[in-house]
Amino acid sequence: MPDVVELIITKRDGGHLAPDDLRWLVQAYTRGEVPDYQMSAFLMAAFIRGLNEAEMDALTDAMLHSGHVLDLSDLPGRKVDKHSTGGVGDKVSLILAPLVAACGVPVPMISGRGLGHTGGTLDKLESIPGLRTDLSIEAFRRQLRELGVVMIGQTDEIAPADRKLYALRDVTGTIESIPLIAASILSKKLAEGADALVFDVKCGRGAFMQQEADARRLAETLVGIATRAGRPAVAWLTDMNVPLGRAVGNWPEVVESLRALRGDFEGIEDLIEVTLALAGEMLWLGGAAETPEAGRRLARVALTDGRAFERFCAMVRAQGGDVRVLERPETRPDTEPAGEVRAPDGARGYVADLDARAVGRLAVHLGAGRRVKEDPVDPTAGLVLHRKPGDPVAPGDVLATLYTRRRDRLVDFRQALLAAYRFAETPPPPRPLLLARYAEGRWTLP
Amino acid sequence: MPDVVELIITKRDGGHLAPDDLRWLVQAYTRGEVPDYQMSAFLMAAFIRGLNEAEMDALTDAMLHSGHVLDLSDLPGRKVDKHSTGGVGDKVSLILAPLVAACGVPVPMISGRGLGHTGGTLDKLESIPGLRTDLSIEAFRRQLRELGVVMIGQTDEIAPADRKLYALRDVTGTIESIPLIAASILSKKLAEGADALVFDVKCGRGAFMQQEADARRLAETLVGIATRAGRPAVAWLTDMNVPLGRAVGNWPEVVESLRALRGDFEGIEDLIEVTLALAGEMLWLGGAAETPEAGRRLARVALTDGRAFERFCAMVRAQGGDVRVLERPETRPDTEPAGEVRAPDGARGYVADLDARAVGRLAVHLGAGRRVKEDPVDPTAGLVLHRKPGDPVAPGDVLATLYTRRRDRLVDFRQALLAAYRFAETPPPPRPLLLARYAEGRWTLP
Repeated sequence: MPDVVELIITKRDGGHLAPDDLRWLVQAYTRGEVPDYQMSAFLMAAFIRGLNEAEMDALTDAMLHSGHVLDLSDLPGRKVDKHSTGGVGDKVSLILAPLVAACGVPVPMISGRGLGHTGGTLDKLESIPGLRTDLSIEAFRRQLRELGVVMIGQTDEIAPADRKLYALRDVTGTIESIPLIAASILSKKLAEGADALVFDVKCGRGAFMQQEADARRLAETLVGIATRAGRPAVAWLTDMNVPLGRAVGNWPEVVESLRALRGDFEGIEDLIEVTLALAGEMLWLGGAAETPEAGRRLARVALTDGRAFERFCAMVRAQGGDVRVLERPETRPDTEPAGEVRAPDGARGYVADLDARAVGRLAVHLGAGRRVKEDPVDPTAGLVLHRKPGDPVAPGDVLATLYTRRRDRLVDFRQALLAAYRFAETPPPPRPLLLARYAEGRWTLP
Repeated sequence: MPDVVELIITKRDGGHLAPDDLRWLVQAYTRGEVPDYQMSAFLMAAFIRGLNEAEMDALTDAMLHSGHVLDLSDLPGRKVDKHSTGGVGDKVSLILAPLVAACGVPVPMISGRGLGHTGGTLDKLESIPGLRTDLSIEAFRRQLRELGVVMIGQTDEIAPADRKLYALRDVTGTIESIPLIAASILSKKLAEGADALVFDVKCGRGAFMQQEADARRLAETLVGIATRAGRPAVAWLTDMNVPLGRAVGNWPEVVESLRALRGDFEGIEDLIEVTLALAGEMLWLGGAAETPEAGRRLARVALTDGRAFERFCAMVRAQGGDVRVLERPETRPDTEPAGEVRAPDGARGYVADLDARAVGRLAVHLGAGRRVKEDPVDPTAGLVLHRKPGDPVAPGDVLATLYTRRRDRLVDFRQALLAAYRFAETPPPPRPLLLARYAEGRWTLP
């Protein structure tokens, strides 16, 4: 049995732990044999000194095997999943999972909840009346076999070590470490049984990684660990300085996703661009397309010909959700707008900029997100942006519609949204959305 | 109230905490409001990133004021104390405290126990039959006023924050940090009410600081914090590659100290050299000598004319100890040698080297020290070295006498001691003992 203090000192002094020692440390911590105060000292040392590839692999592997690891190898097809590092208005998974399944590649997706200013796929799914995300493993397998797509929440049985470690990191200032983030993500993603993975690493003020260099390093780390674990992987670096699409909030994002799934791309071209890029990779990795570009073309067809929408509805139905409301979302009774935000007098010309982080924070205040983990979310709270960067604007134009039950605070909310906008007389230069692609050890431009 | 995670993150990223924030952190931790796992993450960040002067001062001050702070300003004279960072055979305090007091400078000394391979003054004092070190604050003050010297142990009321922090550092790999070590030492030394301080910073394989650069940095840090806290201070860097003097172990070191206190310096010239250098500084800082060199001369006289010995006996008597055994230590009944270690066949010429750390570890095994904090110590266990580096040696010569109750392990003990020796045909080059002096912001050679 290794000596815990010796392991801490090794990392403290910039050394590297033997994979077996690191595995033992994580296991002993999960079993409660290593106390929090020793693990937090180790995590801080690891945060500052870093982990090498062998350590990241061992850490991921130990967290992965702390719980249930799904084996889907008996199900036909190469299963592919996507993970996003989180952004504002990022409803890509809702569109992508049924879309890729409709093109013949099975998608077993286990998603998380929103925290901070970013939303979570699980909260978005659960805003659909009746839909359940707490399926048993048996139901998960059955639905994947029958529909090719299933979206559930992380269960207690998957990577419990990660949950315990994350809770400790959250209160000890050790969250923002690329090796620790990557190991945490992959311990969960590898547990769900996918054969290949696509990562959407968001970059910019609305993302956790605000610097492109950090985002690139995270992408390389994620792809590296996945590949060494035997799962081919691709990462896209995508811009998250401005909200993706026009809806932010759980049900508003479902409504926007339904438009996309029906082939109505107007005003949400950015969302479609990211979705198709990721879908192309998944179809390529899943063996349904010769190249990612060919996959992208297949996916575009499946969005416009109704197959993706049908698959989404089938999934919602299978998971107990109300499908009628998907056909006519405007009929949902509890979705009256609380108010509008109009462009001020000086706003003449164009929207020059819109701060995704500020918009994400506002959505939390509207009720769409959590300030602390225990907060409930309001499924219909959020906002829809009618003007985004590049759009022309004149005083009095409606910039956004707000959905919230906290109507007494509308004045504050309007002010917060206006503060997120910048206007200018000339249109801003176009901003690339797909920044770079990382696969097989190298970066390429889109 | 500051946010603990923000404070941790500031230090993690190499920033500096506002003194009030750091003080608050220590106080909240001591009160139990900040949990161990957050403090250990902070300590690891502080270990790796360091603390600046303002942070060290604030940390020291917060630990100091977590408990009782003695105010001796009503007692006459400038009180001066010495602190040693710990070594093997380091019985200097036993000689120095009564010696300096005999020369007119009061010495209020609060000492610690041995841990690891180094001895502690408290254990040495308590090896004197009957002597008590758990005096009340009132008795401490009274004896200091009447005799000018008192030596006690750290009480629970002094710097409890340091005790709690030290226990946490011990199990989280955050001991060997110079700022944390210095703040820990000074929080206790500043609590005992001395007006000035002398530090004996030991350096070499028998010391905690094995590299001279580290020892110098510790000396500068100790003197800096003390000076900024309004206590003039001097540090000596002294060699600790070889045991100091010839006795190692509690009662054996008392016996050797008695010889020094009676002016019999034969074979313990190294011990006398360090003691007089430190005594000179204390007499200078206490105002009894114009210069440290003049203080050294005064001290030498007080060792040879019996005044230091008398003061030691008076102190022992005042603290309940048996003074008759001090007059004739060889009459103490429980001090039969367990055995001798003789020079092997190949040992012709000179003792070339003697590893202080190995000797210190052997003394612990003989019963003189603790392997864990709760171990009892055997007051009479230890050893006396008859051959030290530079001494001539021939096969069969007695190298050392061992005192132990663990007679069944004598074979191992002999082997361990022999492994600490190196022999050579020619005498080793003389090794300087006093390496450098640090005062008023600069280093000087002795």
